[in-house]
Amino acid sequence: MSLNSIFQYFVPKDRVFFPLFEQASSNLIRLGETLQEAVTAKDHAHRIECIRRIEDLEHKGDDITHQIHLELGKNFITPFDREDIHALASAIDDVADYIHGSANRIELYNVTEMTEPIIKIAELILQGCVDIDKAVRELKNFKNIRIITDSCVRINSMENQADYIFDRAVAQLFDYEEDAKVIIKYKELLAAMETATDKCEDAANVLESILVKNA
Amino acid sequence: MSLNSIFQYFVPKDRVFFPLFEQASSNLIRLGETLQEAVTAKDHAHRIECIRRIEDLEHKGDDITHQIHLELGKNFITPFDREDIHALASAIDDVADYIHGSANRIELYNVTEMTEPIIKIAELILQGCVDIDKAVRELKNFKNIRIITDSCVRINSMENQADYIFDRAVAQLFDYEEDAKVIIKYKELLAAMETATDKCEDAANVLESILVKNA
Amino acid sequence: MSLNSIFQYFVPKDRVFFPLFEQASSNLIRLGETLQEAVTAKDHAHRIECIRRIEDLEHKGDDITHQIHLELGKNFITPFDREDIHALASAIDDVADYIHGSANRIELYNVTEMTEPIIKIAELILQGCVDIDKAVRELKNFKNIRIITDSCVRINSMENQADYIFDRAVAQLFDYEEDAKVIIKYKELLAAMETATDKCEDAANVLESILVKNA
Repeated sequence: MSLNSIFQYFVPKDRVFFPLFEQASSNLIRLGETLQEAVTAKDHAHRIECIRRIEDLEHKGDDITHQIHLELGKNFITPFDREDIHALASAIDDVADYIHGSANRIELYNVTEMTEPIIKIAELILQGCVDIDKAVRELKNFKNIRIITDSCVRINSMENQADYIFDRAVAQLFDYEEDAKVIIKYKELLAAMETATDKCEDAANVLESILVKNA
Repeated sequence: MSLNSIFQYFVPKDRVFFPLFEQASSNLIRLGETLQEAVTAKDHAHRIECIRRIEDLEHKGDDITHQIHLELGKNFITPFDREDIHALASAIDDVADYIHGSANRIELYNVTEMTEPIIKIAELILQGCVDIDKAVRELKNFKNIRIITDSCVRINSMENQADYIFDRAVAQLFDYEEDAKVIIKYKELLAAMETATDKCEDAANVLESILVKNA
Repeated sequence: MSLNSIFQYFVPKDRVFFPLFEQASSNLIRLGETLQEAVTAKDHAHRIECIRRIEDLEHKGDDITHQIHLELGKNFITPFDREDIHALASAIDDVADYIHGSANRIELYNVTEMTEPIIKIAELILQGCVDIDKAVRELKNFKNIRIITDSCVRINSMENQADYIFDRAVAQLFDYEEDAKVIIKYKELLAAMETATDKCEDAANVLESILVKNA
């Protein structure tokens, strides 16, 4: 039995992680899309319906994360460091959590007027989710690692933009809004959205560190 | 000298970490209990006395963390990865810090009325501390790893509950409280408490990752 | 060819990281100094000029971080764990980001009166930057690891002081400031500054963990 065939023997178990990560990142895209749909919804009922779907998608994401952890417990051989699989699954889960948290605050705080910064950051979050998905799909063959590095670069730039928009938006609230309660509400919603972009960056950092170790 | 006896020779040094972690997690339970006592205290003097005790316990926790780091420097052989020992000690230290920070804010912000969400999250924090302690005690023999996984599952669910209570509590502040200063004070106190539960989850994540690598 | 000469052969590539980290930590000192200059500036124009310089320094820091990541991709041999190089570069980058974020908020929120806690925390941040630089410079020879541990101890104590000052400052805002908007502005600025000290502590933790593994 050649060394090569021994490796082939292990491949099937090892490869269980790739489809799971792809499910997780596909789910992230749907979360991003639904958040964007929520903040651009024309009426309240539609928005609330989007928020319900976000809740369901977040639960689905939790199940996928849980399955990745279960597989980690069962598989001795993993395609890259166990710690990185753990960290990547957690980072994707965190993005999902903060998208859910943002949607949640829209409902809980009765935020009815969707301002330009809210809509713009929702776009950036979706873009981050799409880039995480692109990079994740490249992990299974490492054929074109440029795809991963490019996605990570775009995610970093996206996070910088979100930071900038968040800072400006809060400054404008101070300038034009008299009611401190309203300031706090919008600031808290924008902060949750901005944290979702930070978590995209965390995912990009894990992806980069997987690359550094394996490419 | 057999390989086995060589290992036995190293065991005593290696095992220095377990009692230290158990001291740290016992201390965490006392911190959780004292925070609960503080938020349910009937009079101001009793509450302040609890906060003083929390300060002392936090200093004690710092000393234990410091000793774990010192032992890491001295011992070449460790029961699990040095990074995980470092990360677990830091996570337990973070929980202690945020319990202390929460107690601190009660005093500094003159929060006198302990609301239901405050009392409920204090209960959840204590529950998290108890579960960290349970899991930590199981590390030394790995005989019943189910105890660790069950604790981690409960900590994750506890953190979700704390999140939910925090979100509702802030929404209610917006709905029923007119004074923005009061909103900010309670929001900041609840946020520190909620972060303590996040740090419990961080500890659970380290515990899970130790399991993944060693079980 | 002796083993020793093989190692010498590799040293030149390996050592590329030390000058880069030293550039990053020197840049951090300049950021800390310029923040201090900004918060103690006598007139508005001078302060704004400092904030512009902080922006430039932060971009310079980004370039250095990027180069460290590029070198990580090119070099198989590294002076310590690839993950630690990645983590240390990220931690230093985070300190720079929050110094920049603090400067940014001063301008965006039109904070004109620099209070004592702002000035004091700016001093502590600078002190943290100086200590990170001291420790980083010692990494290349590990001749006097006491320098690293001492810096880390001072950074931890500095972070505790910043925490304390932050908590007191917010409590005083609640006590003496009636305008909730003003409270939020100062709290947000102080929080960004306090987070910069947290990130110094993160850098110290990475430095400690490099020590634990390599000393």
